[in-house]
Amino acid sequence: MSVSRVVELEGHIIDSGMMEAAFSIVMDHGGSFDVEEFDIGRQKDQESYAKMLVTAEDEETLQRIVHDLHQRGANPADPNDAQLEEAPEDQVVPHGFYSTTNHPTQIRYDGEWVEVEDIEMDCAVIVEADESADNDAGVRAYTKVLNAIEEGDRIVTGDAGIRVQPPERPRGQEGAFGFMQGGISSERPSESTIEQIAEAIEETKREDGNVLVVAGPALIHSGAREDLARLVENGYVDGLSIGNGFAVHDIERDLYGTSLGVNTETLDHARHGHKHHIYAISEIIREGGIEEAVESGKLESGVMYQCVENDVPYVIAGSIRDDGPLPDTITDAVEAQNAIREQARDADMVLMLSTLLHSVAVGNCLPSTTRVVCVDINPATVTQLLDRGSAQAVGMVTDIGTFVPILAENLLEEGAVELDD
Amino acid sequence: MSVSRVVELEGHIIDSGMMEAAFSIVMDHGGSFDVEEFDIGRQKDQESYAKMLVTAEDEETLQRIVHDLHQRGANPADPNDAQLEEAPEDQVVPHGFYSTTNHPTQIRYDGEWVEVEDIEMDCAVIVEADESADNDAGVRAYTKVLNAIEEGDRIVTGDAGIRVQPPERPRGQEGAFGFMQGGISSERPSESTIEQIAEAIEETKREDGNVLVVAGPALIHSGAREDLARLVENGYVDGLSIGNGFAVHDIERDLYGTSLGVNTETLDHARHGHKHHIYAISEIIREGGIEEAVESGKLESGVMYQCVENDVPYVIAGSIRDDGPLPDTITDAVEAQNAIREQARDADMVLMLSTLLHSVAVGNCLPSTTRVVCVDINPATVTQLLDRGSAQAVGMVTDIGTFVPILAENLLEEGAVELDD
Amino acid sequence: MSVSRVVELEGHIIDSGMMEAAFSIVMDHGGSFDVEEFDIGRQKDQESYAKMLVTAEDEETLQRIVHDLHQRGANPADPNDAQLEEAPEDQVVPHGFYSTTNHPTQIRYDGEWVEVEDIEMDCAVIVEADESADNDAGVRAYTKVLNAIEEGDRIVTGDAGIRVQPPERPRGQEGAFGFMQGGISSERPSESTIEQIAEAIEETKREDGNVLVVAGPALIHSGAREDLARLVENGYVDGLSIGNGFAVHDIERDLYGTSLGVNTETLDHARHGHKHHIYAISEIIREGGIEEAVESGKLESGVMYQCVENDVPYVIAGSIRDDGPLPDTITDAVEAQNAIREQARDADMVLMLSTLLHSVAVGNCLPSTTRVVCVDINPATVTQLLDRGSAQAVGMVTDIGTFVPILAENLLEEGAVELDD
Amino acid sequence: MSVSRVVELEGHIIDSGMMEAAFSIVMDHGGSFDVEEFDIGRQKDQESYAKMLVTAEDEETLQRIVHDLHQRGANPADPNDAQLEEAPEDQVVPHGFYSTTNHPTQIRYDGEWVEVEDIEMDCAVIVEADESADNDAGVRAYTKVLNAIEEGDRIVTGDAGIRVQPPERPRGQEGAFGFMQGGISSERPSESTIEQIAEAIEETKREDGNVLVVAGPALIHSGAREDLARLVENGYVDGLSIGNGFAVHDIERDLYGTSLGVNTETLDHARHGHKHHIYAISEIIREGGIEEAVESGKLESGVMYQCVENDVPYVIAGSIRDDGPLPDTITDAVEAQNAIREQARDADMVLMLSTLLHSVAVGNCLPSTTRVVCVDINPATVTQLLDRGSAQAVGMVTDIGTFVPILAENLLEEGAVELDD
Repeated sequence: MSVSRVVELEGHIIDSGMMEAAFSIVMDHGGSFDVEEFDIGRQKDQESYAKMLVTAEDEETLQRIVHDLHQRGANPADPNDAQLEEAPEDQVVPHGFYSTTNHPTQIRYDGEWVEVEDIEMDCAVIVEADESADNDAGVRAYTKVLNAIEEGDRIVTGDAGIRVQPPERPRGQEGAFGFMQGGISSERPSESTIEQIAEAIEETKREDGNVLVVAGPALIHSGAREDLARLVENGYVDGLSIGNGFAVHDIERDLYGTSLGVNTETLDHARHGHKHHIYAISEIIREGGIEEAVESGKLESGVMYQCVENDVPYVIAGSIRDDGPLPDTITDAVEAQNAIREQARDADMVLMLSTLLHSVAVGNCLPSTTRVVCVDINPATVTQLLDRGSAQAVGMVTDIGTFVPILAENLLEEGAVELDD
Repeated sequence: MSVSRVVELEGHIIDSGMMEAAFSIVMDHGGSFDVEEFDIGRQKDQESYAKMLVTAEDEETLQRIVHDLHQRGANPADPNDAQLEEAPEDQVVPHGFYSTTNHPTQIRYDGEWVEVEDIEMDCAVIVEADESADNDAGVRAYTKVLNAIEEGDRIVTGDAGIRVQPPERPRGQEGAFGFMQGGISSERPSESTIEQIAEAIEETKREDGNVLVVAGPALIHSGAREDLARLVENGYVDGLSIGNGFAVHDIERDLYGTSLGVNTETLDHARHGHKHHIYAISEIIREGGIEEAVESGKLESGVMYQCVENDVPYVIAGSIRDDGPLPDTITDAVEAQNAIREQARDADMVLMLSTLLHSVAVGNCLPSTTRVVCVDINPATVTQLLDRGSAQAVGMVTDIGTFVPILAENLLEEGAVELDD
Repeated sequence: MSVSRVVELEGHIIDSGMMEAAFSIVMDHGGSFDVEEFDIGRQKDQESYAKMLVTAEDEETLQRIVHDLHQRGANPADPNDAQLEEAPEDQVVPHGFYSTTNHPTQIRYDGEWVEVEDIEMDCAVIVEADESADNDAGVRAYTKVLNAIEEGDRIVTGDAGIRVQPPERPRGQEGAFGFMQGGISSERPSESTIEQIAEAIEETKREDGNVLVVAGPALIHSGAREDLARLVENGYVDGLSIGNGFAVHDIERDLYGTSLGVNTETLDHARHGHKHHIYAISEIIREGGIEEAVESGKLESGVMYQCVENDVPYVIAGSIRDDGPLPDTITDAVEAQNAIREQARDADMVLMLSTLLHSVAVGNCLPSTTRVVCVDINPATVTQLLDRGSAQAVGMVTDIGTFVPILAENLLEEGAVELDD
Repeated sequence: MSVSRVVELEGHIIDSGMMEAAFSIVMDHGGSFDVEEFDIGRQKDQESYAKMLVTAEDEETLQRIVHDLHQRGANPADPNDAQLEEAPEDQVVPHGFYSTTNHPTQIRYDGEWVEVEDIEMDCAVIVEADESADNDAGVRAYTKVLNAIEEGDRIVTGDAGIRVQPPERPRGQEGAFGFMQGGISSERPSESTIEQIAEAIEETKREDGNVLVVAGPALIHSGAREDLARLVENGYVDGLSIGNGFAVHDIERDLYGTSLGVNTETLDHARHGHKHHIYAISEIIREGGIEEAVESGKLESGVMYQCVENDVPYVIAGSIRDDGPLPDTITDAVEAQNAIREQARDADMVLMLSTLLHSVAVGNCLPSTTRVVCVDINPATVTQLLDRGSAQAVGMVTDIGTFVPILAENLLEEGAVELDD
């Protein structure tokens, strides 16, 4: 005896691939479907609507189908309220808790759909009473990572009463962001691609958007430090997310003129060059920190310097391969994640430059609606970073040592004036 | 007016490349040399000796040359004692402190050469009085990383009175370790190379050596978990150095039969599979930790399980990309480094399997005399890991998902009995 | 004043992504559409039908849309016959000739749809009278590459009267081929994936299918030669497509026990080892060719030997980096392509093993309906090879030196008997 | 009973690594040595001399040692004349023929050392009487590849009477070429490295050197076509070695404004874009060839156009993955190799840009004394190309689409004037 359930799809369900995905899911699980209503959006600005009766052989298969459909944005036609259960202890979630996607999500409470705040992958959803909430249900819903769960938190469990809305590719969009749907290709013209990334940055800034730069030490070694510093100085960077190594090599360049012991201009190896990074750390420890070193006049140039001078906030997240570390480095991974989470939530556009570790850490905290540009010379890194369901993401396989200078040239020659307004 | 100094080279100075390096250094800095004595080791078991007068235009250049020669094992002929200076504050080293290489090192104290204990790259050398020391000088010398420096520590500064001995390639060595000097090649026959790695592991075990395995989560995803677990069970692994992700996916496989939501045998995607890793974390938190989960019978198989059952110590080092993390994960990077440092010092042989981050962290703590095998599918990772001056290191560009099963087959079919003695 | 045209879509138009692609094309070109009929296939074995009125601002835009739709399988509702024009000279096509995709294609002649034979990418379609053709139109249609065009050939031009049918992903298919839709992942369990490839090969053989192996010299260097030879000996390989280097190194191993001068079992470097490949070539030249060398007893083992002994046809295609070359190598690229084309047309399944050049050459000649397995340690190679619209293609990023032995173990332990029947 | 032989080493035998290599060879084969004379070059401009008695257990081992020493430049102290034997048939070499290295080589004839002309790897050495030769022996010695051997050619066999001189790293060399000994690093500052490559090109041109560019189609797709065309136009390129694909995509860009169907400036996909490359081929066939297309005004821009206009000779070598091919493409691999061989012999400096196949083909024909710059985004490609014993070679892992524009900017802003003199 088979069982059935009605699900609904709304939006650009065909041109976003949602319809195709839904059909695939049903068939892959051996179920069948009957399209009871289908109202097609015939123009690019019209949404479609479909109502589909899904049938499976047993309840377990049906639930599996409905769960998977749900993840792709097909929602049960007659939803119930979300189920809530209390956390039995700190850091301990109820069995069967709902683990979030990175897509915009609503949960149903007292018959009303409530937006989940701070959406982020692999979190629990907490619901708490909040009279000031701008919904009739009088509750707030928001995400918490496992280690932040507190005893008594009311946590959503099961699949009922949850609505997920994967972002659609912006269709026919004019301007720079239209370009940011392109995936990755190492065979794309490099200079033109950088130009379009520059335009997307300018557009983000014109809309008062917040640009977060995530960068690895290869950026410094490859000689792009001065150009990134100029971008910070000229207001194109609203936040910096890095590791101890990036900061150390940036500072080494200021104090000793080298990066990894190599003079990045003359390519000469300096005497004692291999010691410079450890000396740089020791000098900053002596000063008490990066800000103190800028204030005392010890540190006079570079990316960190410009961040301090221009009040651009930075997070230096520690890792087990760090030397030192610098006093400014957050050595606890959970604390560092929390600091990164704040940065990620503020960002409208994220540039991930030559770092896998920090890019993944930032990417983990991003909703699928944030614009992402990912640049690395290793195609596997770019692929891994882009594969997160972002609606507007572009990857470029190129040399960070030539990318940043050309990007800076594009931005600083054309865009600087507008920004300074 | 030029200045000169006499330096000496001892050992297999020609076939280790030391002589060539010395000549290059002098010439690269624009100096000249006069070989005053040269006693060549004419047989493979004889050492050579050379005495060389190095001349440069000015004192600064001469010091630069002598410094670089020193790093390569050429030592001043008439050494002074090492200079010592006190650390002015916690974590603050004196200016011009001597930063270590990873090669065996001695410092001269009261005219006597004292071995530096726990040698490791980028550290300071601390000298402290120790009546029980087995040298007439009555002192111990040992390394400290920057963040462990305490006010008042007596720290070696400058270059004087320090002797570095880069290990030589073992020449004409019989057996498995002779093979471990081969660098990397992706064009080497794969099965034969794995056989030789197996032999080197067996030889290490026969010599009562300690084998440390450093592994990344790709090992689990690629289906090699069961074979690594068998190696732990059969005594081939004396320590495990991993991250939170490795442990989580190993446990996910036990609890849900999947890795990253995929059944590693049938390749099926499980219902809710993408949630399994977060559920696995939450279950272990509920139990209180991995050991507790093994004791309670919750966790019944896999690498972590076998470690607990066989008393193989593990370090789970946290990182900013972790989910959870597990209660066993050391989230503070400095603490985690210290735990890794202990593992590294105990190891006679290190297998680095499909992880860049953890391999670098372990590698940072290794002296250049420890045997290293590095396996990754990305040639750049293998190159980066091998490029650390190890005397016995071999890299293999291969698929970890086929490497571990073939290695296990080699070890468990032939070597197990001997081990169990 | 806008212009319109009606197009039709038939088949699994939603779950194959055809519908989504069609909507995207119209919108991307700034057109609009009106879905006049939409009959949805509600079960997995039912086809759908859609009739769509496409409108654009001018005739040029409309044609561009219709052209692009056409490439994706949407065909004009009221087709005309295909236009034919004669080739003015040898190798010279008429302006605006129709250049093929690799999908099954029909052209309309005298109101009847005629299947294009030997479909292959980037070819012209020739139509010639053929009374024996099994269609009422009395014509054959088939592809020709540019260099094969002869003066007077009647060639299809424009887009009218051409129907393209991109293959759909086989849905819900049981057994081994169901697995072959998976794309690439370096995080898939390796041994299980190889098992499934083995099953797909066995299924192909059970269906009397033809398996073509395309292999590069890395296969020999990595020590997989003996296992591939066993697969040839046991009937799993129906054709071999290689370059001069593969054959040379296979023969070097027989004559001198080395590959690139290295003994693939002991890993020893042989005396004069670096000369072995050039000596191997010279020996075969002396014999007159590979077959002659087998007959004379000079060549006694390996892949080429087994091909000769078991009448497995091979094509050795020359390239500008060849040493020698061997007498059997086809040095002219056009001739070699023609030989490869014959192999490709006969193949039901193609294994592409560690060669980009030869895999691309074979891939260029394959229709999108042939099954393809692509194995390489470089992810970029696998991506490039899979990116050709094949309906059943699977890529695996692994070490060929462990892949072939494990594949052989799977096939020869389980499948050999059945094959020998 | 052991056997011995005296060998001599001359030159910068220590700082070139020759001495170390020699010791290693003897020991690796289980032999022993006695250094009978050792006269060390104490200054950078003095050569050293060593005389070494090598002893082994049996004649076979001794010969193996002497052979390997010989390959590294250690020559027997009392040389005999080279042995000569006639080729029995066309393309058939005598057994035991001497197969060349790519290092400068001399053979001993009638007691006199005769330089081998056109030295190149893996060739036979032919000796023929030549009264006009500028040596007393009255002979010429030169290389022939296997397929060029003619019956009766007198061919060097064995190891006797052959002297190989591996080039030494130029020591302490001033200027741009001093930089070209650096190997590869992906962590070198990119812009500074490109500047130094530009300087090395300028220096080559100032010395009336010949610059050969070897380029792959990725250069066109990545948008660097216009800048390479400008370098041709301004006299920086003396020869071009490419494949059919490079020429096709260069021409496609002129005729249709696209590369692989993509407009390299706007990044738009053109209507029918995927057909453009096949149309481009067909247009050039119609014209009769590239030169004809330039003359008729059909082809008006790009790299091929500038080559024709500026009389820069090019070789278009065919391959089995070619479409078309163009009438100018040499489809026979042996003929193409011969054409490439001429280019390689003329070159003083070779730029290998984003092509493995053509770079290997050119590299095969180069003596180890030619300067080589190798640029690719894949580190494995760069490693493979540099690993050929060149004395002056530099590799750069970067994006060709940013490399060429920055190189052109460096050369055309500073160097153009001098060149035009």
